[in-house]
Amino acid sequence: MNNKFDLYFKRTETELAILKFSGLPQNIYEPMNYILHLGGKRIRPILTFVANDMFGGDIEKAVAPAISSEIFHNFSLIHDDILDKAPLRRGKPTVHTKWNIDTAILSGDLMLVKAYEIISKTESKYLDKILKIFNKTASQICEGQQMDMNFETQENVSETEYLDMIKLKTSVLLGCCLKMGAITADASNEECEKVYNLGVNMGMGFQLMDDYLDSFGNSNDVGKQTGGDILERKKTILYIKAAERDNDNFLSLINDNKIENTEKVERVKSVFIKTGADLFLKNLSEKYFIKSLNYLDEIDVAEENKKTLRNIIDFLRSRNN
Amino acid sequence: MNNKFDLYFKRTETELAILKFSGLPQNIYEPMNYILHLGGKRIRPILTFVANDMFGGDIEKAVAPAISSEIFHNFSLIHDDILDKAPLRRGKPTVHTKWNIDTAILSGDLMLVKAYEIISKTESKYLDKILKIFNKTASQICEGQQMDMNFETQENVSETEYLDMIKLKTSVLLGCCLKMGAITADASNEECEKVYNLGVNMGMGFQLMDDYLDSFGNSNDVGKQTGGDILERKKTILYIKAAERDNDNFLSLINDNKIENTEKVERVKSVFIKTGADLFLKNLSEKYFIKSLNYLDEIDVAEENKKTLRNIIDFLRSRNN
Repeated sequence: MNNKFDLYFKRTETELAILKFSGLPQNIYEPMNYILHLGGKRIRPILTFVANDMFGGDIEKAVAPAISSEIFHNFSLIHDDILDKAPLRRGKPTVHTKWNIDTAILSGDLMLVKAYEIISKTESKYLDKILKIFNKTASQICEGQQMDMNFETQENVSETEYLDMIKLKTSVLLGCCLKMGAITADASNEECEKVYNLGVNMGMGFQLMDDYLDSFGNSNDVGKQTGGDILERKKTILYIKAAERDNDNFLSLINDNKIENTEKVERVKSVFIKTGADLFLKNLSEKYFIKSLNYLDEIDVAEENKKTLRNIIDFLRSRNN
Repeated sequence: MNNKFDLYFKRTETELAILKFSGLPQNIYEPMNYILHLGGKRIRPILTFVANDMFGGDIEKAVAPAISSEIFHNFSLIHDDILDKAPLRRGKPTVHTKWNIDTAILSGDLMLVKAYEIISKTESKYLDKILKIFNKTASQICEGQQMDMNFETQENVSETEYLDMIKLKTSVLLGCCLKMGAITADASNEECEKVYNLGVNMGMGFQLMDDYLDSFGNSNDVGKQTGGDILERKKTILYIKAAERDNDNFLSLINDNKIENTEKVERVKSVFIKTGADLFLKNLSEKYFIKSLNYLDEIDVAEENKKTLRNIIDFLRSRNN
């Protein structure tokens, strides 16, 4: 995307390679290395580095929280995949499929402990603040995941409830990553809050765009079959709006198990378009991205320093995969 | 047991009552309060308070690590009960039975995060040291639990492997709790190590006694039916020694599914006695308790200050339930 983005991606990969979890028994450590090296955009540690850099910090001080956020994220993937009964992640077997559920629970637990072990290496003068935002965020992510699970059996999910859920499950961690970069660059509390809010709004825009692409993305671009959310009857904004605007038809269609999958996806997508749910979602995503850009404008550093973060927001905003 | 023990038990109960986890969604917080209030001896926080007191510390500084250790212990109970497929804990339904496995995974995760949130409140001057021993211990407990799981399908488990496992799964946390009390009382590194080793050895003695009582305790005293380990073919020291000394007979007996449970327990116990596995285990437990008392002797504080901890060791050593 740009040189600094690449630089921080590489730095993350280097740190993760050095880290290499090892110990006994091997079968609790192997899944940790396995999931970490399935790939991934490493967006979370990159955000910590980018924010640290934006506020003129010493990048070395951001390493511990940056890497910790990636380890935490991967812990949550292992456990979420169990809850979602997901067979694959990035085209490879999930941890509980390759090993078993018990080992996936324990490896995940150990990975959460390791996230804390790593973040504990943050320089003492930043440690209190770092732990405070990290602990808060970690709790929120668990809450968000539980909400997401509850929605599966909850008949009516409101727009507000859905937005609350993705905020907790996805967005706050991006805000936390940026804030940890700012803290380790000695940014003021006020600037830390701005960059946190920037991250949360960017995360909302990102997740809503993700939901849009799950139905309307080009499967070649997205790299996986689209329509997954539709077939799982996931109560996303598209579902909620279509149900609100075309109640009877939409609900009988989405709950009809006799229609073949490809046809069902196409017919549901038509309802999304007919009801304007697709546009509503795109506009909502856009609204959050613009809010995040507004926070970026308010941050009190030279425009030049904001370039990488601005590029990241623009990239996420205009992506089609 | 004595006044200080009761005092610290009550202090723990008060702190846990104040804590009361609350938040949304409710169904992730309810299991946390449920498991915490099923009762329990609160031995871990009490050990932190007792060690702090022994080294003449200010008890208030020990509160955060003490309570955190109890929260951590309860997190591990929730997840262990899933792995062990245990229907009951202290005579009440386990979390995954009362709710479901997914909620038990997530509530456990949140409880682990909360343990860290609480320990993060430790006074800054102690925080580095506290996190270091807590992180190390938390990793070891996960490793120990994985070893325990692996033993279920591992044909031969050696005495050394079993002792390693219980050290990781149970004993190190007792050492950690004592050490955290010492750290927050400004004890020297040397004294911290002594009290840590005391705790680990006491934990070994405790767990081995637990294994003994599981087969040979009086079920009225123990409060549950004895013989559980025998029926589950758990590879404890009794199993390992009996298999070593009476290979063919013991293994065919323990693997015989046609014998009625009560009869099987009695017959296996006879083999334990005949092979001297029972005495071997009792002696081993005793050896560890004596080691822990030796560490207590070496600790450089007035004998008067050691009284509560000495009573605790004597109590655990002579218990019959």
